[in-house]
Amino acid sequence: MITVDDALAQLMTLVSVLEAEDVPLIEAAGRVLAADVSARRDQPPFAASAMDGYALKSTEVEQHSILKVIGESAAGHRFDGQVGPGQAVRIFTGAPVPEGADFVVIQEDITRNGDLITIANAPSSNSNIRAKGNDFAIGSTLDAPRVLTPSDIALLASMNVATVPVIRRPDVALISTGDELVMPGDTPGPDQIIASNTFGLKAMIDALGAHARILPIARDNTASLRTAFKLARGADLVITIGGASVGDHDLVGKVAADLGLEQSFYKVAMRPGKPLMAGRMNEAAMVGLPGNPVSAMICGKIFIAPMIEAMLGLDTNAPTLLKAQLTEPLTANGPRQHYMRALLDGSEIRAFDRQDSALLTVLASANALLIRAPFDPARKTGEIVDYLPL
Amino acid sequence: MITVDDALAQLMTLVSVLEAEDVPLIEAAGRVLAADVSARRDQPPFAASAMDGYALKSTEVEQHSILKVIGESAAGHRFDGQVGPGQAVRIFTGAPVPEGADFVVIQEDITRNGDLITIANAPSSNSNIRAKGNDFAIGSTLDAPRVLTPSDIALLASMNVATVPVIRRPDVALISTGDELVMPGDTPGPDQIIASNTFGLKAMIDALGAHARILPIARDNTASLRTAFKLARGADLVITIGGASVGDHDLVGKVAADLGLEQSFYKVAMRPGKPLMAGRMNEAAMVGLPGNPVSAMICGKIFIAPMIEAMLGLDTNAPTLLKAQLTEPLTANGPRQHYMRALLDGSEIRAFDRQDSALLTVLASANALLIRAPFDPARKTGEIVDYLPL
Repeated sequence: MITVDDALAQLMTLVSVLEAEDVPLIEAAGRVLAADVSARRDQPPFAASAMDGYALKSTEVEQHSILKVIGESAAGHRFDGQVGPGQAVRIFTGAPVPEGADFVVIQEDITRNGDLITIANAPSSNSNIRAKGNDFAIGSTLDAPRVLTPSDIALLASMNVATVPVIRRPDVALISTGDELVMPGDTPGPDQIIASNTFGLKAMIDALGAHARILPIARDNTASLRTAFKLARGADLVITIGGASVGDHDLVGKVAADLGLEQSFYKVAMRPGKPLMAGRMNEAAMVGLPGNPVSAMICGKIFIAPMIEAMLGLDTNAPTLLKAQLTEPLTANGPRQHYMRALLDGSEIRAFDRQDSALLTVLASANALLIRAPFDPARKTGEIVDYLPL
Repeated sequence: MITVDDALAQLMTLVSVLEAEDVPLIEAAGRVLAADVSARRDQPPFAASAMDGYALKSTEVEQHSILKVIGESAAGHRFDGQVGPGQAVRIFTGAPVPEGADFVVIQEDITRNGDLITIANAPSSNSNIRAKGNDFAIGSTLDAPRVLTPSDIALLASMNVATVPVIRRPDVALISTGDELVMPGDTPGPDQIIASNTFGLKAMIDALGAHARILPIARDNTASLRTAFKLARGADLVITIGGASVGDHDLVGKVAADLGLEQSFYKVAMRPGKPLMAGRMNEAAMVGLPGNPVSAMICGKIFIAPMIEAMLGLDTNAPTLLKAQLTEPLTANGPRQHYMRALLDGSEIRAFDRQDSALLTVLASANALLIRAPFDPARKTGEIVDYLPL
């Protein structure tokens, strides 16, 4: 058995950054920017008023000054003339500041009578003008890689970037294996259970920015497994669930080896999730997850998520562990790293009493994984422990 | 002007929980469960082995005992006979425990010779059997409302729930207004800028579980605004951006009133984002956001997100403010609640120097909003302030 860290390091050697594709801006949210993109214009593209008011020369800004209004500049409709001495132009927020003017007196400081205005209150020193290029200039970049947020999308729009280079979504094939499985909605026989792992993993993997395909269930025979692996072709990552243990009926490793798997490791010293294998299989990375539902989901979070992030070109440093205080004691841990299902409440945490790797109800109630290193000693209430949020 | 809290309270009166719809399980991740759903079966549906080993009577578990193997129980293939005294059944993880057996000795504790096994090591007291219904029983529920996580999806699958009742996605119509706007990819004239707010808001609103539609840009005239409002019909929430200020060219409020808007408030004491109006407009809620890009996005986070959560039936209590320590001082705040773009690093925070509401580059660099109450006094380095993560 190898450690979780060693397994992660080996998994990272199985994947590399995928190629880029262009998508319309409206579909780019949540995708990973593949290359720095440059602004195609200055923003604002002209000196613009930040307020509703009157544009004039700053040298004429003085309380009780009277000026003549010679025109209007609205957003989208610039005033084309020059502002001379003793003159002002009515201006609205976002409108171009006319030539000759370098100050906007806000309308609250003005009294108007026909074409004449009086500066009623002494204006502040703020010119209320946004300089051309104040937000960004032509050629300013939004730098890759980054997961595009709503604010990034707004910024790209204002840069006039209508098509965005993003890393294509990793194609992930999910194969659950076992004669005991039926699909949700089917009528299981007395010895059968519902295939749940592929559904949970697809939800997790899709949320990470990949695209998971649930393949037909592979039965516990060579022909069925071969068919499933053939259907997985084209995937960047092939994940099997179940059948990676040492049971006599676990054929996954044998069939995968026949089909070209170069196994890089088998079994990781962790709970839940001990049976886990990985390697390169022709053009794809291949990972065999354990069949217990909680094990499969936790291996998904600990191992599959970093692989997908690596394919997307994102930082794949181990996730930062957070700290919380125990509200209930823990017994000593065994030789395997233990990811205990736990409930975090502010800065306090407690592990659930029931840690059986078959309990999906407990996993669905948990909001954190409390992490115990191998041979971690017993811990008392009040001690500080590591966790990952779920 | 009204306070942020008063505005939020009034906005909540404009919306109510939407109706449910059924979706296939595979599309249910991230959706909001609309009604409690019940397990259609026990899990496990039979007493199941948690390990690979041998099933026998617990009364016969003793070191050096020799038993005869009379058959095999694999996942999906139960052993149909009875386990009698002196007998054992080879069993694999997940397989039904045969009748007559109530204990599984793990294979690591067994030596086998043909049909005979010897219990080589003294087994632990753990029976290695998962009782029928150990995870959940028929009728156990997953309770609404909740945003369905990957673990929830796995749980629903194992409950054999193939179709899931979820709240339908709110339909949100986004109308940007202004003669100065063109769409990304267009060639703007010298007085024009790119419409960015609708793109940023759509990304934000879609990520919240709604479906936003970007309507054609409405120009600064009555006919164009009427057309846009007509295109918005059927929406649960109509959002206009820009044109809600007091400028002479801001027709949005007038046209909306002609079309039936019952305005509930106008202007909120906040920065950025002062011009903001809201009301009921026929069958929809209507909110008018300010046109400055940063104002529009922050109003989206502070006001639109809770409205969408309310329509989805989620808890709409004000978001919990988090605390961080200032690394740079702040000057005294004015009469409006200020949402300052800020950079959070662990437990430390600093506001950006440039807080102009037109700066999308600053918003895209920020990861938190530092919140100042009206008239909050000057703050020194080291003081604790409130923030919301972005």
